[in-house]
Amino acid sequence: MSSWLPTLTTATPEEGYDLAVKLARVAIKLTQPDAEARDRMRPEYAEDADALIAVSQVVATHFATVAAANGYWRDTP
Amino acid sequence: MSSWLPTLTTATPEEGYDLAVKLARVAIKLTQPDAEARDRMRPEYAEDADALIAVSQVVATHFATVAAANGYWRDTP
Amino acid sequence: MSSWLPTLTTATPEEGYDLAVKLARVAIKLTQPDAEARDRMRPEYAEDADALIAVSQVVATHFATVAAANGYWRDTP
Amino acid sequence: MSSWLPTLTTATPEEGYDLAVKLARVAIKLTQPDAEARDRMRPEYAEDADALIAVSQVVATHFATVAAANGYWRDTP
Amino acid sequence: MSSWLPTLTTATPEEGYDLAVKLARVAIKLTQPDAEARDRMRPEYAEDADALIAVSQVVATHFATVAAANGYWRDTP
Amino acid sequence: MSSWLPTLTTATPEEGYDLAVKLARVAIKLTQPDAEARDRMRPEYAEDADALIAVSQVVATHFATVAAANGYWRDTP
Repeated sequence: MSSWLPTLTTATPEEGYDLAVKLARVAIKLTQPDAEARDRMRPEYAEDADALIAVSQVVATHFATVAAANGYWRDTP
Repeated sequence: MSSWLPTLTTATPEEGYDLAVKLARVAIKLTQPDAEARDRMRPEYAEDADALIAVSQVVATHFATVAAANGYWRDTP
Repeated sequence: MSSWLPTLTTATPEEGYDLAVKLARVAIKLTQPDAEARDRMRPEYAEDADALIAVSQVVATHFATVAAANGYWRDTP
Repeated sequence: MSSWLPTLTTATPEEGYDLAVKLARVAIKLTQPDAEARDRMRPEYAEDADALIAVSQVVATHFATVAAANGYWRDTP
Repeated sequence: MSSWLPTLTTATPEEGYDLAVKLARVAIKLTQPDAEARDRMRPEYAEDADALIAVSQVVATHFATVAAANGYWRDTP
Repeated sequence: MSSWLPTLTTATPEEGYDLAVKLARVAIKLTQPDAEARDRMRPEYAEDADALIAVSQVVATHFATVAAANGYWRDTP
């Protein structure tokens, strides 16, 4: 019964950023569950600046959530 | 008198994410109530990286709300 | 002297969602006050996945506001 | 020494929404100060569903700010 | 050692809005540091409603931050 | 074991803005890890007003997070 998202807590900001990237990708998998279809699209959008910037926007939105969840890691040394 | 959205509270972050996906989809249903019309569009946007990223952006916005509603599940073991 | 927006308080999350949809639509009416012009556009964007996703994004942004205004309906039974 | 934005406080949610619409428009005026140029564009984007939805998104973002500034008008009778 | 952004505090909401406009522009300068290249683009996007609305969206996002930083100027007379 | 993101804390608002720019760029690197592919795209989007505005939007979203993390630098002299 493992979960892909057991918690929003991460040890560091960098791990929080990685989690934000993961959160951005899962919605795409849930909307297009066919891995081959996603693989077909990848070379296309990975060469498309507009798509890359749009991905970065989704990551930014999730990072805001993860950062708030972690109290902005203010106590991290 | 059942509601499709009785509460924003979920037991886990993963369930909160699923709720965010649902919240993103309902607005589309309310704007295009014709299920057949939605089905016609699906194969198209499911193969379109830009559309998938845009869906992911909507999910991210709703996930921020659901996460805040749940106090970021900080007490989840 | 009735108002289309007397309050952001709603009894349930579902009513809050409906209010978010309304908030999204009013801005469109204020920018394009001609009802016939809006009706001409409707069949077009209702068949356009990108437009439907964009509407869903606006609803998500308003839902965040309405949810915060209602304390996320945490006291709803 | 009058200001176009003396305060974010409004008496009602509806007035707050109107202020959000105003806040969305001023950025466009500051970027395109030529009123004639703006008038030339108006018929075009007022018939364009994508542009109307995008305007609605900007209004939604400003409305979130104005609503927070007013404590969501929770004390409004 | 002057800074282009010494503080997010402004005396009034209107000054806060101007700061939001500035915050939106600086990211463009940092990504396209060539002033001539920016000047070449300006007439183009200043006549493009979609671009003007997108600029307004960025300003809205920054204004939310500046407004929060200033406690929404609630104490302004 | 150095991290590219050890903390969200910065001494000044300007450094916070620079961090927001960095946060926007890293998501692009993680999605398109090939530096040459990114270099090929750069001249293209650096001349494209829409892309520059979209980058500015991502920066704005990250800046909101960084600013909140730093208490809006209210104690900065």
